[in-house]
Amino acid sequence: MEPLRRKIQEEGKAIGTDIIKVDNFLNHQIDISFLREIGKELGQRFGDLAPNKIVTVESSGIAIACETARYFGDIPVLFAKKAAPNTLVEGYYCAPAKSFTKGIVSTLRVSKNFLGPDDRVLIVDDFLAYGEAAMALCELCRQSGAQVLGIGAVIEKEFQGGSKRLREKGYRVEALAVIQSIQDGKVIFQAD
Amino acid sequence: MEPLRRKIQEEGKAIGTDIIKVDNFLNHQIDISFLREIGKELGQRFGDLAPNKIVTVESSGIAIACETARYFGDIPVLFAKKAAPNTLVEGYYCAPAKSFTKGIVSTLRVSKNFLGPDDRVLIVDDFLAYGEAAMALCELCRQSGAQVLGIGAVIEKEFQGGSKRLREKGYRVEALAVIQSIQDGKVIFQAD
Repeated sequence: MEPLRRKIQEEGKAIGTDIIKVDNFLNHQIDISFLREIGKELGQRFGDLAPNKIVTVESSGIAIACETARYFGDIPVLFAKKAAPNTLVEGYYCAPAKSFTKGIVSTLRVSKNFLGPDDRVLIVDDFLAYGEAAMALCELCRQSGAQVLGIGAVIEKEFQGGSKRLREKGYRVEALAVIQSIQDGKVIFQAD
Repeated sequence: MEPLRRKIQEEGKAIGTDIIKVDNFLNHQIDISFLREIGKELGQRFGDLAPNKIVTVESSGIAIACETARYFGDIPVLFAKKAAPNTLVEGYYCAPAKSFTKGIVSTLRVSKNFLGPDDRVLIVDDFLAYGEAAMALCELCRQSGAQVLGIGAVIEKEFQGGSKRLREKGYRVEALAVIQSIQDGKVIFQAD
């Protein structure tokens, strides 16, 4: 997605060889009209499927999930929680996921009320790095009996191997901007 | 907002005298088309103002903030973070807030890059209970020099006193459904 690659080049901030900050438009401040384009593009990439639910994880995936849900006719969004609030009193599925940017392991949880064998799930998130969060979301779906149709990320850091791991497990993965490396403050993308 | 009160009555689950669970449509699973109505209504409540930014706190406020931003012509959304990721390396404003549903004190943070004296801010969130999160968001705005035009909540638990505290400090507060009490599994609303 060329406009996204351009926006990352122009507005993103590379830190070392691992991190690209896009908090001015994607995961702290949100550029609403740009997000609409992102949701539409993610929808189109999986347009041949017929998901009935978008699953993501708090927090940065939520706005993206809502825009993608819109593409598929306002299907429900379900976002996994990283902490157990005292309102999550009924049963839930849970799976561990290490956060690359926070350096901690979280337990992702979804209520058993909202995921089950009738669900055809598209998983979306802002970043796909090592694939930890996506793997955990797939595991939540597996526990519930829901079918994972695919995994869509806005930005993939290909050099961290997440997409490879997920594809080896048979999942379809799409990312709108695939970063091959970050060097000397510059981001090198894979061509479409 | 009558459709919201009806939805809370029909689909919400009261727990004890303090908690109403609405995780089937608002803050775990999200009903996208209903959220659009909520965003529009929040926008209309503050339609006489001209915010240039919507500020909320992760996670449950994000989707609501995006819908409200849409009403005002796709103005940016900024969501405060509860943990400091390693990408938040530059300066930030921070303020403590106690979470009612999690029983912990979080430090809310926003980057200094995205909030400043030119900002005319509308704060939105899913719940207004004791007002802790809203107070912290107001404090972040104060530190940055941004002006708070008002605070909009989807559901207010009036009996927990948050709106009273905020109004005493001079803030304009609007909530789409105001709960006066929760008793014997029933939710008692204040009339519009």
